[in-house]
Amino acid sequence: MSILSPDALEDALRAIGAERYHIHHPFHHLLHGGQLTKGQVQAWALNRYYYQASIPAKDASLVARLPTPELRREWRRRLVDHDGDGVHPGGIERWLALTDGLGLDRDYVVSLQGLLPATRFAVDAYVRFVREKSLLEAIASSLTEMFSPNIISQRVSGMLRNYDFVTEQTLAYFTPRLTQAPQDVAFALAYVKDHADTAERQEQVLAALRFKCDLLWAQLDALHFAYVAPGLPPPGAFRP
Amino acid sequence: MSILSPDALEDALRAIGAERYHIHHPFHHLLHGGQLTKGQVQAWALNRYYYQASIPAKDASLVARLPTPELRREWRRRLVDHDGDGVHPGGIERWLALTDGLGLDRDYVVSLQGLLPATRFAVDAYVRFVREKSLLEAIASSLTEMFSPNIISQRVSGMLRNYDFVTEQTLAYFTPRLTQAPQDVAFALAYVKDHADTAERQEQVLAALRFKCDLLWAQLDALHFAYVAPGLPPPGAFRP
Repeated sequence: MSILSPDALEDALRAIGAERYHIHHPFHHLLHGGQLTKGQVQAWALNRYYYQASIPAKDASLVARLPTPELRREWRRRLVDHDGDGVHPGGIERWLALTDGLGLDRDYVVSLQGLLPATRFAVDAYVRFVREKSLLEAIASSLTEMFSPNIISQRVSGMLRNYDFVTEQTLAYFTPRLTQAPQDVAFALAYVKDHADTAERQEQVLAALRFKCDLLWAQLDALHFAYVAPGLPPPGAFRP
Repeated sequence: MSILSPDALEDALRAIGAERYHIHHPFHHLLHGGQLTKGQVQAWALNRYYYQASIPAKDASLVARLPTPELRREWRRRLVDHDGDGVHPGGIERWLALTDGLGLDRDYVVSLQGLLPATRFAVDAYVRFVREKSLLEAIASSLTEMFSPNIISQRVSGMLRNYDFVTEQTLAYFTPRLTQAPQDVAFALAYVKDHADTAERQEQVLAALRFKCDLLWAQLDALHFAYVAPGLPPPGAFRP
């Protein structure tokens, strides 16, 4: 591969999203299309909790490797967004409001007892990726947020329309994400376009985004297999 | 060793400080006693900059391993204290005001070109310790802050009294530390007393604090050797 201009690199990143982002997964279509039972939506929220709860671990290990106060402050904002500030709830707390709203026991959710093992493997792979790969690859792996406003608006509008057990309050997790994600993306995308200055580094960046799309996709595969078709939750996993 | 009560453990921690904290190092006595040249004080500030600049790396890798939003928020405060919030300067910026005030070129300080290799080894050992040891040991290694208000007040009052090249503004780094450190200690000490619940864990906690005292001490040893007696800075190191 020869070196791309920064804008061509951005196009290549967006092309990965167009092909691989989990907005195209059948489970997502069932979810926002109103074709899941309450139990299946519970399974989704319960498993996705582990992803939400692990985000600050990956972000803090990224902060630990950023070289300047300016860069660390930029990325520290994500810690505040997810963990809150002690007054305003963060993303994890808001996700628990979602699992509450779906009628799941909070202690059970937090205990991770009912988690699909495949969810754990995928999420842990993400935390390890960010800890162990280059800073550039770690930052690039966050760029699925380029695509998240679309999936969030589909989810929120579809779920509100189609499920009588879902309210705006239940889905309050998503509202701040519509402004937080673009702010995060603006920084991360500029960093990646600026620092991926060889063909090799550009290929690493594209691979990092593919990896991240794959692990989001794999989480929906596992949900689909366990709870939709054929519908075989593994021993010990949540049963609606 | 048999298990100690939490208060006896605190006494044992304080006894380590009484014996090993670098307030007892001859270089500290020379520094606050006004017996160093401006060049020797510059060497101290230049080397200590690397310690300051590395603190957020160790704190963020600790945040990355804390399991709950509450614990992470508590430790996140240290990131804010050291990196600032983009409006109020953090500890690193305030330390650079100190090296500015001592007449050192800021680019040279930040470049780490003049750093003593022994400073780098000691500081890097601290960052690695926090990243690799148990969470309990990582938190315990912060407890030298139990002893820091004393050394800070000795430094500030002694340096102001004894050096005409030092002003209150130059030493502004230290003022917020007098309130930040006790707040940090209150949490860390309570955590350690609560979680060091076996004789083995208590021994780990005591060893972690000894390790931390040793690495602060080693930094002053290196300064003393290079710049006081015999006064042999290694090749490439800062020369006043």
